[in-house]
Amino acid sequence: MRSQTSFIFDLDGTLVDSVYQHVLAWREAIRAEGIELSVWRIHRKIGMSGGLFASKLLREIGLKLPEERIDKIRRGHAEAYKRFVDTVEPLPGARELLEELTRVGVPWAIATSGHMESAGATLRSLGVDLERTVVVTRDEVKHAKPDPDLFLAAAERLGVPPEGASVVGDSVWDMLAAQRARSLGIGLLSGGYGLEELERAGAYRVFADPADLLDNLDEVGGRR
Amino acid sequence: MRSQTSFIFDLDGTLVDSVYQHVLAWREAIRAEGIELSVWRIHRKIGMSGGLFASKLLREIGLKLPEERIDKIRRGHAEAYKRFVDTVEPLPGARELLEELTRVGVPWAIATSGHMESAGATLRSLGVDLERTVVVTRDEVKHAKPDPDLFLAAAERLGVPPEGASVVGDSVWDMLAAQRARSLGIGLLSGGYGLEELERAGAYRVFADPADLLDNLDEVGGRR
Repeated sequence: MRSQTSFIFDLDGTLVDSVYQHVLAWREAIRAEGIELSVWRIHRKIGMSGGLFASKLLREIGLKLPEERIDKIRRGHAEAYKRFVDTVEPLPGARELLEELTRVGVPWAIATSGHMESAGATLRSLGVDLERTVVVTRDEVKHAKPDPDLFLAAAERLGVPPEGASVVGDSVWDMLAAQRARSLGIGLLSGGYGLEELERAGAYRVFADPADLLDNLDEVGGRR
Repeated sequence: MRSQTSFIFDLDGTLVDSVYQHVLAWREAIRAEGIELSVWRIHRKIGMSGGLFASKLLREIGLKLPEERIDKIRRGHAEAYKRFVDTVEPLPGARELLEELTRVGVPWAIATSGHMESAGATLRSLGVDLERTVVVTRDEVKHAKPDPDLFLAAAERLGVPPEGASVVGDSVWDMLAAQRARSLGIGLLSGGYGLEELERAGAYRVFADPADLLDNLDEVGGRR
């Protein structure tokens, strides 16, 4: 019996080119609260759950905010991102990769730290049929990345063991959460992280973007 | 006789928080020419000379453009960046770091791959007195980073040997150009590159941002 790999994909920076729009939306929301924060610090936290994101960022600059102001920043980000979402495009090869997996019968799902409110528009830009695709969002789990809950939920909904899944993501948080789910982590450079930081966070293989992963799908078990 | 270190600073991403604005300005200019390019690929080339930047990016996606269209993209970037420059802020500690070096009498200069047209506004946001500061821009040298010309010209204008200079930059191109100038490279994370890629490009020390470098100035010879 051959082992069957399944794939669980992160969304932002992995299937769609939306990381920089998220960065700018967070920056806008944070500045609206009168807080100055360097853009790279925001970028390095993208992909974390919104709650962890805000509290970790603020801790980094030695600031403590009450929960309601953090909530306001979160809502500000969602509002600002809506204005940017029109400029979001699928990453090269993303659609073709998902189609190929479907064609050869390899199970796949999408698991995102975003809420359906933001992720819905992004998923539509990707042309995903929400009726026929397993999508796990922040709304469905208690803890988002770097906790493994999103990936564990996705594996469960696919009916596959997490140990047999490959988690494809662009951020260090995806790779850490993949390790905690005992899945394999596959890194993509398309979210703007460097190769070495993805490897050090546990990626067992790193590709440039979905097109590059599609070209090398045999390397990582992407066939029936 | 004690050896005297001098400092040559890159500008964007090193002293001012402008990398993401440059990324989006390039993206806009490239899309205006009908070319689709992932944002991370643009980010990874920021800090190169505009000419090298455009031709290397296009080669990466297998496209060849005549010189006049590349020129149009360059002009489009300069135009778009002007609209973004109001949102550009100095990085934490940047002003204080330059003031401290001046105070203790350590020679320092700024060397940027940008033309004075774009860099002028950025330098003003930093509060640099252009009359009293050595600033070398793209206009003054034949080749920009990763060629060493900018750093060599800055060392010459400071009247110091490049071998005694520390080049502070946020990009792999700064670190490669520093090596070619036989200077030491000090990396900053504030441009969005990862620690490991800066080290692998030759950074002998990496700090978070100018404030972190200022806190640890003794480590890298920043005293008279």
